[in-house]
Amino acid sequence: MRIAVYGYGNLGRGVECAVRQNPDTELVAVFTRRDPASVKTLTGVPVYSADSITDFCGKIDVLIICGGSATDLPEMTPQLAKYFNVVDSFDTHAKIPVHFENVNAAAKESGHIALISAGWDPGMFSISRLYASAILPDGNDYTFWGRGVSQGHSDAIRRIRGVVDARQYTVPVPAALEAVRNGENPILTTREKHTRECYVVAQEGADKAAIEAEIKNMPNYFADYDTTVTFISMEELQKNHAGIPHGGCVIRTGKTGLNGECKHVIEYSLKLDSNPQFTSSALIAFARAINKMYARGETGCRTVFDIAPADLSPLSGEELRAHML
Amino acid sequence: MRIAVYGYGNLGRGVECAVRQNPDTELVAVFTRRDPASVKTLTGVPVYSADSITDFCGKIDVLIICGGSATDLPEMTPQLAKYFNVVDSFDTHAKIPVHFENVNAAAKESGHIALISAGWDPGMFSISRLYASAILPDGNDYTFWGRGVSQGHSDAIRRIRGVVDARQYTVPVPAALEAVRNGENPILTTREKHTRECYVVAQEGADKAAIEAEIKNMPNYFADYDTTVTFISMEELQKNHAGIPHGGCVIRTGKTGLNGECKHVIEYSLKLDSNPQFTSSALIAFARAINKMYARGETGCRTVFDIAPADLSPLSGEELRAHML
Repeated sequence: MRIAVYGYGNLGRGVECAVRQNPDTELVAVFTRRDPASVKTLTGVPVYSADSITDFCGKIDVLIICGGSATDLPEMTPQLAKYFNVVDSFDTHAKIPVHFENVNAAAKESGHIALISAGWDPGMFSISRLYASAILPDGNDYTFWGRGVSQGHSDAIRRIRGVVDARQYTVPVPAALEAVRNGENPILTTREKHTRECYVVAQEGADKAAIEAEIKNMPNYFADYDTTVTFISMEELQKNHAGIPHGGCVIRTGKTGLNGECKHVIEYSLKLDSNPQFTSSALIAFARAINKMYARGETGCRTVFDIAPADLSPLSGEELRAHML
Repeated sequence: MRIAVYGYGNLGRGVECAVRQNPDTELVAVFTRRDPASVKTLTGVPVYSADSITDFCGKIDVLIICGGSATDLPEMTPQLAKYFNVVDSFDTHAKIPVHFENVNAAAKESGHIALISAGWDPGMFSISRLYASAILPDGNDYTFWGRGVSQGHSDAIRRIRGVVDARQYTVPVPAALEAVRNGENPILTTREKHTRECYVVAQEGADKAAIEAEIKNMPNYFADYDTTVTFISMEELQKNHAGIPHGGCVIRTGKTGLNGECKHVIEYSLKLDSNPQFTSSALIAFARAINKMYARGETGCRTVFDIAPADLSPLSGEELRAHML
């Protein structure tokens, strides 16, 4: 399977590494909107200008689009689905229906297949919610994120005047997790589910009390949470907070029986040293699936819900039934 | 969706209860090999003789076959796939490939669709192993069962002379679980993964020491495990060991990055008050999927690996994308 990457940031580099773990895949090109001469890939994969991508029609089986969800992907994915089979990790949950329609129209018209919103949330967490709710219709869903770095929240802190750099960790509240796992079906406010830990490097002479207040009162991002702010040095940030770990869990508790007398707990959890690398690894598996589906004549847009698990694997149906079922 | 049940034990009763939680399903008939007049259903569903089942051709959308894997299902599922769309929970892992071929041939010839080996293991655990290995190809799989009742092991104890009744619990070894979750990739023997707890009611005057020795030395079932045997009264068994709880977890640990520098842990776990009721609930969801697939013209045998998650849900693609992705 000939894969190409469009956009070479953390996610694109993750795809480049993941390809090496999947012998049935090959990374044939990286496309960038920067000057290609200024981009050096980790493994020597050639870099081309994004403008030249249509020269590669017929030479790429699946194009993995590694752009941001805010402004890149809503434009890029429908545009590129005119020429290639594409996969993206669009993660603005509220805008998925619109994105789906745009990509579906482009892919159907060009006779390609596309998969949007692959990764872990949306992605594996969504799949877990769907399986669990289909099996236990009389139940409640809970999703906890963390402990892990929220890039959006870290960015929000960095935009505050007097802040040099920052790292924000989203942390589930242990008592809430415990109550959910015990099947107590608690009704939890935003504040009761997660806390936010902020590690901030301030400019010399900055008003730390003002920075802390501005963080804690920031609407949407922090005001609804119990937030702690710790000022640290740049050295400490680089030493102890260099990674991008994340994770979390999806839990469904439900009842069965004639009178709901039996309780059940389904939990899917992830502990990830690198959020973008795990997402990249999922993108490769889903790229494999749509490549198989395209070979069967399928076109249009899909989500992770539409992919049969067998299509994600390099193994045959016979091998899967014999060794993994 | 008109469902019928073939075989009315714990699993069949579980299906009967689960149908009430799924408004798009209806249980139209229970078939039994016993005298139908001797079988009373929990909710008043009519009971018919297994011999009369071909009278129901065209009146049932999916037949859920609730028989045992040892001798019932290898005969029943291919036979019934000649007349109906069928789902079973065949769980003899080593014999799945043969069972698949037999059911596939029958279903293809008759133009029906069949799904074998639905439930949790095989079933949801298998699906979890497949997703995790597709995303993290450089990794290790671990499956732990319990704490829960093993019916096969309980039966094995009951066959010992002097035993009136027994309940056997399979229990994961905490240190093994901990090492796996920490990403230590331990190589574990059978004995290091699980212990077996046996609660035994002995006949009055029975030789308890002999019973205990016979259990602990039983090949395949107990000899490879650290096994504890506790003699209890029938009252205590009925009071404290009446349920059929089970569960367990599937864990995959893997590495990503250019040099495997990032570790990841994926865990899927179940805590079930009733093993058969959870299995029944899964059977209904998979019955829904094959009913949809049959409507799209698909025939032949499938496993849980071949089912796109969206087909398990009563919700439409639009609803799933808007609310669950």
